Amino acid sequence: MNNWDELQESVGFTFKDITLLQTAFTHSSYVNEHRKEHLKDNERLEFLGDAVLELTVSDYLFKKYPDMAEGQMTKMRAAIVCEPSLVEFADSVHFSKYVQLGKGEEKAGGRNRPALLADVFEAFIGALYLDNGLAKVIQFLERVVFPKIDTGVFMETVDYKTQLQEIVQRDRDVLIQYDILGESGPAHSRAFEAQVVVNGQVLGKGTGRTKKQAEQNAAEFAVRQMMRN
Amino acid sequence: MNNWDELQESVGFTFKDITLLQTAFTHSSYVNEHRKEHLKDNERLEFLGDAVLELTVSDYLFKKYPDMAEGQMTKMRAAIVCEPSLVEFADSVHFSKYVQLGKGEEKAGGRNRPALLADVFEAFIGALYLDNGLAKVIQFLERVVFPKIDTGVFMETVDYKTQLQEIVQRDRDVLIQYDILGESGPAHSRAFEAQVVVNGQVLGKGTGRTKKQAEQNAAEFAVRQMMRN
Repeated sequence: MNNWDELQESVGFTFKDITLLQTAFTHSSYVNEHRKEHLKDNERLEFLGDAVLELTVSDYLFKKYPDMAEGQMTKMRAAIVCEPSLVEFADSVHFSKYVQLGKGEEKAGGRNRPALLADVFEAFIGALYLDNGLAKVIQFLERVVFPKIDTGVFMETVDYKTQLQEIVQRDRDVLIQYDILGESGPAHSRAFEAQVVVNGQVLGKGTGRTKKQAEQNAAEFAVRQMMRN
Repeated sequence: MNNWDELQESVGFTFKDITLLQTAFTHSSYVNEHRKEHLKDNERLEFLGDAVLELTVSDYLFKKYPDMAEGQMTKMRAAIVCEPSLVEFADSVHFSKYVQLGKGEEKAGGRNRPALLADVFEAFIGALYLDNGLAKVIQFLERVVFPKIDTGVFMETVDYKTQLQEIVQRDRDVLIQYDILGESGPAHSRAFEAQVVVNGQVLGKGTGRTKKQAEQNAAEFAVRQMMRN
């Protein structure tokens, strides 16, 4: 089995136009060293794939978190479609192995350069979109990207009060309430204590130097408790 | 005919879920003044619509300019999906008239605020996508956005040598060549003259303080001549 067959088997799709898949894995340094073959590098596919990822991830967040504010969704999307995350996704499907690199770039360790791997991942998404349409891209993301979102790991970019709201919103008619229990200390180093009450039950307490921070810490406690269950 | 029927007739689509269309045109100031009605503002739809626009415009550029480099496509996309352009698109379909605004925002002239109109345009795209899918969005853009791209107006963000290449690329096997014809003046204010030759025919000449600038000006001359025909 050649590399391209192996790759297609690994991602679970057969490309109608195999040159699209090959182009997605072709770095400009390889094109420069093989001028006579008139190859294309993956930069245009990366441009397209980036936009495909932005939309598919936005759509997923929009539907998964029906009450999340626009600003929070924007933060989460940025945490998902960013170099370190894209590298993780690329690694999870072993993309590094299939990249076509120039010799100089190979010697310089280019194959495992984060920016290069992130570009290849986006270019692959662009190629899949052109060859198979948006529905196939979503099928791929359902295996490689969305389960990661479901673990809640990208929620860490979102504040804890919002996280708690998103968790308990699954059950309707939930009332979340924050109480300031007290404050202490001199004016220049005041400390506040807050609690969060969900449907009448105290789920967390926290302290902080502002009321807002105390509430955040109470919410964080509640979120961590709930994640553990 | 009520406003929403009029709007749907004007955009050429009937929404299955009319509340999506209404939400797209609802500013947060209106929601704040009508708390009892439990309305949603258009911010989440704007988040989604922005990503839909990025993809549909990227896809269009990718296919329309098969030889354009990634960097140039990125510049063009930024010129298309930016506030002033979105306001123009929104104006061309008279969206301002249908926006639901709070009284304070209305008095402050919010109805014609560029940022507000750009947001409404994106929110409308988000609503159309949710209600009717990507194909319907593309149908709408084929009337409102893509013809504007076809006029070449957004090409102005792209350098003239690239523009010329894109124009003549329509015919295959075209050779574009730049010659430096001469230079003059003292070292501190040198002037160069260049010409651009396409398939053996001189299409433009230009001068500049660097060779590169002289070539750009020659290309600009050629592009403007060709646009006139």
